[in-house]
Amino acid sequence: MKLRIYNARILTKNGVIEGELRTDGDRISYLSPVSTLDWQDWDREIDLKGNLMIPSFKNSHTHSPMTFLRSRAEDMPLKDWLYKQVFPAEGRLTDEDCYYFTRLAVAEYYAGGTTYCCEMYGHTEAVASAFADTGFGAYIGSGIFDFDGNYDKITKRAVELKSKTDKLPRVKYALAMHAQYTCGDETLRAVSDLSKEFSLPVLTHLSETAEEVESCRNEHGVSPVRLLAEKGIFDLGGTGFHCVHVDEEDIKIMKKLNVSAVTCPCSNLKLASGIAPIGKLLDAGVSLGIGTDGAASNNALDMFRETYLATVLQKYLSGDAAALSAKKLFDSATDGKICGVEKADGLYVGALADMAVIDMSAPEMQTLGDVRDNLVYAGGKRNVIMTIAGGKVVYEKGEYLYGEDYVALLEKCNSAAKRILDES
Amino acid sequence: MKLRIYNARILTKNGVIEGELRTDGDRISYLSPVSTLDWQDWDREIDLKGNLMIPSFKNSHTHSPMTFLRSRAEDMPLKDWLYKQVFPAEGRLTDEDCYYFTRLAVAEYYAGGTTYCCEMYGHTEAVASAFADTGFGAYIGSGIFDFDGNYDKITKRAVELKSKTDKLPRVKYALAMHAQYTCGDETLRAVSDLSKEFSLPVLTHLSETAEEVESCRNEHGVSPVRLLAEKGIFDLGGTGFHCVHVDEEDIKIMKKLNVSAVTCPCSNLKLASGIAPIGKLLDAGVSLGIGTDGAASNNALDMFRETYLATVLQKYLSGDAAALSAKKLFDSATDGKICGVEKADGLYVGALADMAVIDMSAPEMQTLGDVRDNLVYAGGKRNVIMTIAGGKVVYEKGEYLYGEDYVALLEKCNSAAKRILDES
Repeated sequence: MKLRIYNARILTKNGVIEGELRTDGDRISYLSPVSTLDWQDWDREIDLKGNLMIPSFKNSHTHSPMTFLRSRAEDMPLKDWLYKQVFPAEGRLTDEDCYYFTRLAVAEYYAGGTTYCCEMYGHTEAVASAFADTGFGAYIGSGIFDFDGNYDKITKRAVELKSKTDKLPRVKYALAMHAQYTCGDETLRAVSDLSKEFSLPVLTHLSETAEEVESCRNEHGVSPVRLLAEKGIFDLGGTGFHCVHVDEEDIKIMKKLNVSAVTCPCSNLKLASGIAPIGKLLDAGVSLGIGTDGAASNNALDMFRETYLATVLQKYLSGDAAALSAKKLFDSATDGKICGVEKADGLYVGALADMAVIDMSAPEMQTLGDVRDNLVYAGGKRNVIMTIAGGKVVYEKGEYLYGEDYVALLEKCNSAAKRILDES
Repeated sequence: MKLRIYNARILTKNGVIEGELRTDGDRISYLSPVSTLDWQDWDREIDLKGNLMIPSFKNSHTHSPMTFLRSRAEDMPLKDWLYKQVFPAEGRLTDEDCYYFTRLAVAEYYAGGTTYCCEMYGHTEAVASAFADTGFGAYIGSGIFDFDGNYDKITKRAVELKSKTDKLPRVKYALAMHAQYTCGDETLRAVSDLSKEFSLPVLTHLSETAEEVESCRNEHGVSPVRLLAEKGIFDLGGTGFHCVHVDEEDIKIMKKLNVSAVTCPCSNLKLASGIAPIGKLLDAGVSLGIGTDGAASNNALDMFRETYLATVLQKYLSGDAAALSAKKLFDSATDGKICGVEKADGLYVGALADMAVIDMSAPEMQTLGDVRDNLVYAGGKRNVIMTIAGGKVVYEKGEYLYGEDYVALLEKCNSAAKRILDES
């Protein structure tokens, strides 16, 4: 597939270039203010009419199949919600359910300019297939925990899952464990050993709630970050999801062991977990990603809203309107590193052709100020008029272009959700 | 104008009705699950195809012309931003500038399902004309302050402005003063007297920042709420915009004197002002509205984002995921009372025909859960496919239907913004 995209504003790390961008396969092959005349056999030529090409969003933490739980039983205390609503319903999920619920999530991701995610969920092969079948990029793990069985069962299952998922296009196996509080010593040993066997860092929910940190300190005398570090989980680096309740010592450990942090501000507010100290994490040199978490606790899968909140919440937290610029967080939100993909961190020749087009004529984009500030502070999914994933146009003005029968998909998802939830 | 709208889901206070809604002039004239056959001379019959009709949003605090300052000079300390950016630029505004900048704001309001606002800005006649010419509803005042001159000048100007604005369709004069810290005793006396003369409550910025409250206490020994109450400003009730730093005594006074509160969570976070205690205000029985504030400090004019944040920030603040339901805040966001309009608080026969249509097939609206929860937690401007103001369809799928030459409007606004800001 070769695309020629002209009359474009192109958002690069060095500012906005007015000109032309071309793709060859899944890469950007040309980016210049100059339109050279070398004719090629373009699959498509696209006149952007002055609209803005941006790197796509990379959703660094999500549970995509949870679209079936969106806006059911809201405004409940966290424990009631988890134990009375989420867990019983999840117990009734089939592979097929998860496949279609994930396709529904992908439709939302694409319509909002997101093309990659870091995914953690059960029924992992089915979820991975949904990503592969829609051209979506995913770094995907099951979220290993004690319920997966003993050392042998866990390691055998991981090897099997890795060999299957790594075969799929734009999908890569991630060594993801659920969390410190759901993984005992034997599970942690298995995860640590797998990390060395696969040469992979470990991804995990980390210090999401105050209760979780307190109970780890009561039981083990140290914080979850330090405990996992002592158990060898982060020997090859890692990623912590949420990191709402990390302290100064935790942040030092994360920096030293190359553990990235992913912030999920919408979910953390809605579940009353708190605000992650991402200003401090960034100051300490910890890499930062931004994620939506699942639709059950968010409820949108909207990287615009997450990025906006990530910046304004730090202004609130620090009492300083000048804290943590929108520009910095836009870069965090569009960088693919935590999703396990290199060269997906901006628009330049050789970079992955994962991009979105923003309608600059929309009133919220006007009058024309700084475009990156405007994207973060006033932009939204409404402004995305085209999404390109791996060099293919997958979404354009409300239409999905990867063979999705969207009406049938909604029917399948709603009838499955009805079956799963009516049994509750 | 008579509209017949069928195959609709209609969101009423008693739940969702599947059926038909009709309008006659600016009122809802029929709302029923049953489609009776009485033929009428419809101006338009609209098949909603199962999509959702909701009451429109009422933006209870805004400065609409500030679209010219959107995304300029972001991430600055508040005082530098105000004194070096905002005030000098505002000094160069003309009536014509404000007229077009307001029309740009209206385009954004309509595209996001908002049809009414409570407005405070200078060049007030020009701003009011922009509302009248676009069919937008407004309760509008100038924001009286010391710079307006002495008692006689202030009262004369108010009488003149009231007589002009009250003549415009869907526009009503509001007695708005800027804030306690910009109004000395003579100005306050004028405002208090005008309140009695006009039989109008007083609208004002109130306890937005900690500094403002502290300096009032230092100078006057009491909080801004109590000071204004003692000066007779709230003798006929009133509305306080922001109310971030009101304490228990303030809340008691507000309840007793029938002073409503308007929360602007986006602006308050971005300017690091804090989080208004709206849970406590509602518990005390104070009426609540939701507003965007101006585009310079928000930067979107997006009532979805405000309503979402209003609820999740209270969950964060109280540490309780069950605090302050989305349903309650959706009602606050769609009630016109603070915008000075009665019977604009829901969809029922006799209510104002100010409504929006939500595309229920969008992925973020699926799977189908509770629609009001879903609107607040996952909905966005993207989901608005039609807006009806005063019984007229003013916006439909990206098009403005009130004679707006949108391309020319953007040109006018950008060239004016360039003139105003290049001189800075």
